[in-house]
Amino acid sequence: MKHKYVYMFYEGNGSMRELLGGKGANLAEMTNLGMPVPYGFTVTTEACTKYYQDGGTISDEIGAQIFESLSKLEEMSGKKFGDSENPLLVSVRSGARVSMPGMMDTILNLGINDVVVEGLARKTNNPRFAYDSYRRFIQMFSDVVMELPKKEFETIIDEMKEARGIKQDTEFTADDMKEMVARFKAFYKEQKGEDFPSDPKQQLMEAVKAVFRSWENPRAIYYRRMNDIPSDWGTAVNVQMMVFGNTGEKSGTGVAFSRDPATGENKLYGEFLINAQGEDVVAGIRTPYHIQKLKEIMPDVYDQFIEVAERLEKHYRDMQDMEFTIEDGKLFMLQTRSGKRTAAAALKIAVDLVDEGMITEEEAVMRVEPKQLDALLHPQFDLNALRKAQPLGKGLPASPGAACGRVVFTAADAKEWADRGEKVILVRLETSPEDIEGMDASEGILTVRGGMTSHAAVVARGMGTCCVCGCGDIRINEEKKEFTLGGKTIKEGDYISIDGSTGNVYGEAIPTVEASISGNFGRFMAWADAARTLKVRTNADNPRDAASAVRFGAEGIGLCRTEHMFFEGDRIKAVREMIVAKDAESRKKALEKILPYQQSDFEAMYEVLEDRPITIRFLDPPLHEFLPTKDTEIAEMAEDLGMTIAELNDIIASLHEFNPMMGHRGCRLSISYPEIAEMQTKAVINAAINVKKKHPEYNILPEIMIPLVGEAQELKYVKDVVTSTADRLIKESGIELEYKVGTMIEIPRAAITADQIAKEADFFSFGTNDLTQMTFGFSRDDAGKFLEDYYEKGIYEFDPFARLDQTGVGVLVEMAVEKGRAARPDLKLGICGEHGGDPSSIEFCHNVGLDYVSCSPFRVPIARLAAAQAAIRARKK
Amino acid sequence: MKHKYVYMFYEGNGSMRELLGGKGANLAEMTNLGMPVPYGFTVTTEACTKYYQDGGTISDEIGAQIFESLSKLEEMSGKKFGDSENPLLVSVRSGARVSMPGMMDTILNLGINDVVVEGLARKTNNPRFAYDSYRRFIQMFSDVVMELPKKEFETIIDEMKEARGIKQDTEFTADDMKEMVARFKAFYKEQKGEDFPSDPKQQLMEAVKAVFRSWENPRAIYYRRMNDIPSDWGTAVNVQMMVFGNTGEKSGTGVAFSRDPATGENKLYGEFLINAQGEDVVAGIRTPYHIQKLKEIMPDVYDQFIEVAERLEKHYRDMQDMEFTIEDGKLFMLQTRSGKRTAAAALKIAVDLVDEGMITEEEAVMRVEPKQLDALLHPQFDLNALRKAQPLGKGLPASPGAACGRVVFTAADAKEWADRGEKVILVRLETSPEDIEGMDASEGILTVRGGMTSHAAVVARGMGTCCVCGCGDIRINEEKKEFTLGGKTIKEGDYISIDGSTGNVYGEAIPTVEASISGNFGRFMAWADAARTLKVRTNADNPRDAASAVRFGAEGIGLCRTEHMFFEGDRIKAVREMIVAKDAESRKKALEKILPYQQSDFEAMYEVLEDRPITIRFLDPPLHEFLPTKDTEIAEMAEDLGMTIAELNDIIASLHEFNPMMGHRGCRLSISYPEIAEMQTKAVINAAINVKKKHPEYNILPEIMIPLVGEAQELKYVKDVVTSTADRLIKESGIELEYKVGTMIEIPRAAITADQIAKEADFFSFGTNDLTQMTFGFSRDDAGKFLEDYYEKGIYEFDPFARLDQTGVGVLVEMAVEKGRAARPDLKLGICGEHGGDPSSIEFCHNVGLDYVSCSPFRVPIARLAAAQAAIRARKK
Repeated sequence: MKHKYVYMFYEGNGSMRELLGGKGANLAEMTNLGMPVPYGFTVTTEACTKYYQDGGTISDEIGAQIFESLSKLEEMSGKKFGDSENPLLVSVRSGARVSMPGMMDTILNLGINDVVVEGLARKTNNPRFAYDSYRRFIQMFSDVVMELPKKEFETIIDEMKEARGIKQDTEFTADDMKEMVARFKAFYKEQKGEDFPSDPKQQLMEAVKAVFRSWENPRAIYYRRMNDIPSDWGTAVNVQMMVFGNTGEKSGTGVAFSRDPATGENKLYGEFLINAQGEDVVAGIRTPYHIQKLKEIMPDVYDQFIEVAERLEKHYRDMQDMEFTIEDGKLFMLQTRSGKRTAAAALKIAVDLVDEGMITEEEAVMRVEPKQLDALLHPQFDLNALRKAQPLGKGLPASPGAACGRVVFTAADAKEWADRGEKVILVRLETSPEDIEGMDASEGILTVRGGMTSHAAVVARGMGTCCVCGCGDIRINEEKKEFTLGGKTIKEGDYISIDGSTGNVYGEAIPTVEASISGNFGRFMAWADAARTLKVRTNADNPRDAASAVRFGAEGIGLCRTEHMFFEGDRIKAVREMIVAKDAESRKKALEKILPYQQSDFEAMYEVLEDRPITIRFLDPPLHEFLPTKDTEIAEMAEDLGMTIAELNDIIASLHEFNPMMGHRGCRLSISYPEIAEMQTKAVINAAINVKKKHPEYNILPEIMIPLVGEAQELKYVKDVVTSTADRLIKESGIELEYKVGTMIEIPRAAITADQIAKEADFFSFGTNDLTQMTFGFSRDDAGKFLEDYYEKGIYEFDPFARLDQTGVGVLVEMAVEKGRAARPDLKLGICGEHGGDPSSIEFCHNVGLDYVSCSPFRVPIARLAAAQAAIRARKK
Repeated sequence: MKHKYVYMFYEGNGSMRELLGGKGANLAEMTNLGMPVPYGFTVTTEACTKYYQDGGTISDEIGAQIFESLSKLEEMSGKKFGDSENPLLVSVRSGARVSMPGMMDTILNLGINDVVVEGLARKTNNPRFAYDSYRRFIQMFSDVVMELPKKEFETIIDEMKEARGIKQDTEFTADDMKEMVARFKAFYKEQKGEDFPSDPKQQLMEAVKAVFRSWENPRAIYYRRMNDIPSDWGTAVNVQMMVFGNTGEKSGTGVAFSRDPATGENKLYGEFLINAQGEDVVAGIRTPYHIQKLKEIMPDVYDQFIEVAERLEKHYRDMQDMEFTIEDGKLFMLQTRSGKRTAAAALKIAVDLVDEGMITEEEAVMRVEPKQLDALLHPQFDLNALRKAQPLGKGLPASPGAACGRVVFTAADAKEWADRGEKVILVRLETSPEDIEGMDASEGILTVRGGMTSHAAVVARGMGTCCVCGCGDIRINEEKKEFTLGGKTIKEGDYISIDGSTGNVYGEAIPTVEASISGNFGRFMAWADAARTLKVRTNADNPRDAASAVRFGAEGIGLCRTEHMFFEGDRIKAVREMIVAKDAESRKKALEKILPYQQSDFEAMYEVLEDRPITIRFLDPPLHEFLPTKDTEIAEMAEDLGMTIAELNDIIASLHEFNPMMGHRGCRLSISYPEIAEMQTKAVINAAINVKKKHPEYNILPEIMIPLVGEAQELKYVKDVVTSTADRLIKESGIELEYKVGTMIEIPRAAITADQIAKEADFFSFGTNDLTQMTFGFSRDDAGKFLEDYYEKGIYEFDPFARLDQTGVGVLVEMAVEKGRAARPDLKLGICGEHGGDPSSIEFCHNVGLDYVSCSPFRVPIARLAAAQAAIRARKK
């Protein structure tokens, strides 16, 4: 039996989304529901895949099936394709499994030519309509199939309007339209060197191919990457008999939602135009009517549409986004699909549908995109204001939300201005730990250098502050206190706005809308929590972040980086003293000075966490990160330490590394200087003992995490230092205290030798940031330069730092889980890389059997929801 | 049945090396051969392992077995341990599976104390001998068991000599010895705060423990690392009845080899001392006699020894290194083992033994350590001169051999001085490609910075020039043209010597001995070639290296790096023009200028290689490596290119990378700039066509290798550029030409996804340098800072850059081999990392089924031999 590549609408149904695409499946479903859907057929996604396999050609087999279906269409409609008397015109539309902006949208009126248009005029007795349809077709076909610039056609229309002194398209006469067709065709011939294609069959095949091609256009690729859509899905093509909204005042076309997509309110929401075709609504050429107006103009049609809309919502049990056309007073449904909605609307609709008894709580949990929750937790730009704004440039979307404020260039200024009530955006080449207070005082942070894991990015995400990083086009002039971007100069005190979710930078004030978590949120999240099995922890280095994460539902800390604690105030001096120490003795002396600071840090953390566990990662970055780089600071430090500048410079030079990421850091530090691990252990354990004395009811459980282990012996060496120190302190205190010692799995070799490492570890935490870097062999800070090329050329489909690469890095994670659990069945497993806050990665974590994910505080709700959805999906399988 | 931890010599045999250690097994074997071996027993290596498992204690079980065996010894000898009348004294010696310097060597005369010594004096009627034995015991026991400084005892002896006005130990009287004992014991008590242990049983157990402990002393650890000896082998302990070489003029002790260990000549070679104990020979206190002298002094003993030596050599079928003692005219054998020998001797002995019919050719192949061949291929220091020299400092042993010459500080000077006949050592902070000519003109290269894969190291190894890298203690004063190291200042023109096999730097001229490959070499290597299945290729970037590798037996080029070709002369200008190009058009123009150079490079390579295959790796390093760093050079370049210095500096800054190793390099360059791959393909293919036209008889087969692939789509993208370019050129030429396109596997993700990558690749070449770095997560250039700590603390047992880490990196290699071959059974597999020249790594490559290894030209013979030995060992299993 030959393979079926084309389905009539009546042959399909709503469950055939994979084969027919979303649009095709829904058209089939509506057809089967007996709704007024113009006849048509769908060329399957498999045909698209075959088109690519066949090197960009449509096989004879598929071509034959298309024309067979076209014959059926002729039969059903009683019209004939290309006929001069009773012509059949069709629309051609793309339709992937999920709706995808960026792909070819629609060609209407296909099948028309000089002969057909005359027949159409005669038959409808409406030459203006006939030529309007013809010129629209030429325009659309030239644009989307032949890639002629759309604008040129609009210029011709504008010229004609001016010549005739008219403003609206509707004012053109039939002759005008005829002339327009002639001018369009002439322009086409001039550009392409050949006549506009008049053979309807050729038109059809070219249009189908154009749809297939559009699957691989850059915007589509970009959209897929942003939305985790695999490139091998392909798109279907829908060919449908035309119905015309442009035959006169009894015709029209529109779009409507069964509920308000902005608020979720349960009332019909939409717009329509009289005497127009589909693209007019979107193009904004005329101002459309609100859907309520239809009740006045065509009450019967309105009632029928209301009935259809309600039926569709009940049928699909979700808010519907519908396209319709009215031809001479008769309603036709052209599309229905689950409507896109704002986060607030998504939440409200999900909860309402439960209350209306339409869906279960578990289904409701599946109805909200986890990533959408971000918008509920951070300020956003006012959409109307945003629409009018033009960004000056773009950086990396490092910490979500929107911010608007006056530009300052130093952390001190940020603090000072904020203290006197100004809203400020801190603009820096890059931030460093001394900037913390200023960063905290700012509405948003904008840096010129640094990637998604730069200091600014990590700290901002922790704070929940909007941040755009690595906006390399900015040129800062520190002397003049100004910067230039996109040709504009912004001075200190000028307003700018930045969007941490897109990376856009605007040279003007754009009002923001505050985050607001409504009552629905709590109910909804409780359903999610009931569904999930994966625990959700947070990455937090200070009590404030920890407290806000707990408010967002974090069940503990999965990553407390200790190095951020090393920078504040006086302690950096002691840290530097430790670094330049010539022997273990003086190193220990310096460490003794750091100890009380670090101990009080941990005490504060335990107090906030109460009963929740905390994973404390020991010192990770290379020591040179703690040293000054500016000459004045170096001179100051040399004086503090009683050494010459030359001596200090020698030490700094000796600490230089070619590839700091692969240098003397992580557990390697504690192997060279075990006294560091000893000091940190003292701080962790003494703090726990103190807080436990104060709050005997807290079940404090410090989990000490040794970073960057690649070999079991490394862990064993440091662990021996930790346990001998900890056990002694606990014994001396007379208090009962449990603690664990584990490691990060962030080096490929650690995953490969996980069985050996597990013998020394109480837990593994997957540090997938570094693991991704090492597995791919590129550093995140440097990869920005070429990853864009990779996306454009279709080599990567997504950013492996945002979404866990399951094919490569995931294999190592699975290997480590398997080997680790085999060697130690009670091994606790978590993830603390940024992937811990990414829904698709969280699903992977659920599926490989991790115990928890850990993410930045503001991602906790997203992770909870994603974990719930992963659990539900897994149960269904 | 209880586990047996102690074996009497007569219970063992020569095959029990693992359990009894080499020394113990050979003592047992000699005992069974009926040779005159003093009675004794061996505490097994398993006892050592148990000692460590038991936290550094000897279990009661093992203790009991030791004393049981001691009883047997008493019975056999008719003497009693600790007896005042007829005392049994014993020696205690370590003995691992292989002989290991750095471990505890020997304690003689154990079992003696104030009472026993008197008995011994009475029984032998030789109080001088008795007290001499006693003082020796105190000395040795204090040193090796109690870790008191040896020197202090020698000081006491020297003081006594001075007081008595004597020069030789032999001049001491019995009373002197008695006094010496008293003074030794007093010193011991002063140092340790307790009496010298007088209980013979305690002495014995302490000595056994000391042997076990010495297995983990730093020197032993270091030696194991250098010689690939696993730390879990442990050592055995041999306890043997004393025979005395110090009872008078009819006694003595000596060491002899059954052939000359320096030349391999077939004649007895050795030394002995009259009236002495073992350590005297080694200590060099008196000048020993040549073994021939024994013929005069004790002809019977000599004859007997000759007979024993011949019998042992025949029995073991190898040159023997024997220790013997003569007690009152009676010969005792204390040890025999395969003698250590120079490379030249190893080769001669192996070939001679074949000619003498004693071993097969295959056995001969197993008799030479592959690494030893190095010494035959490079100049070496004159050993006598070297012994007297003291190094000023140490760098990395980057390229083997020895060199001596006058110091110059620039490549230009090196060239100039060499041209006028001077031998020079080029001393640089680090070398860069412009230094090539100067490097070539030098006897040796010494750099301050850079690791084993730095430019200097890689180029020097290719040239076979001695090189010491990364000698960080050197301070160069460029103005004064001098440097300081180890407190000494060396000026331009001063002689220094460097040892590229150890990293030592000497501040004086040490004569060198030229490399000489004797006739035996060719015969021997032919046997090796007959045995091996693994092919051996070479890493060579220029015709000269290629030619020398071919002379050494290379069967093709496994890695031809193209970037080194980019630096010479005018082409660097075109390269820089390409790098700063603003668009593809100007980039292509610059590349067109490079093309003819590159093409002629390849033509020259094909001419040298004739029929041999060549793997050409496309451009790998990040582009910034080609840009100047000095202000003057930048200014010059800006002028050349007609841009401002600021513009050029902007470009240079934009190319800066945080972690260049993980940056924009390898195939990532060709993905951003496909025109680079296109140009390189043109060069490779056009060159092949041209040479093929000239030499139709050559079977030229270029293998184009795309570096740094981590994802199949990367390879596919670049491969498409290569094949479309190549196929067009070949078609145009009308010549038949085959070529292959493959990739390096040097990124963990490439190994993990090898099945997908294999679909696009004709071959894999394992780039184990980078693969090791990424798998371990440390960069070779930076790891130097902490790896020493790792070795010292027993975390790593060997340098993973020198010897392939089979536990981690090896798992990825195996995974890639399996997945790759499963997807593509005819996939060609090789290795081109430095491990390709390391014998143990070569054995791994053989065992996982690679087709070839590729190494630097001077390692080719080593690789051929190692491959042969791997094949032989594998066949035996």
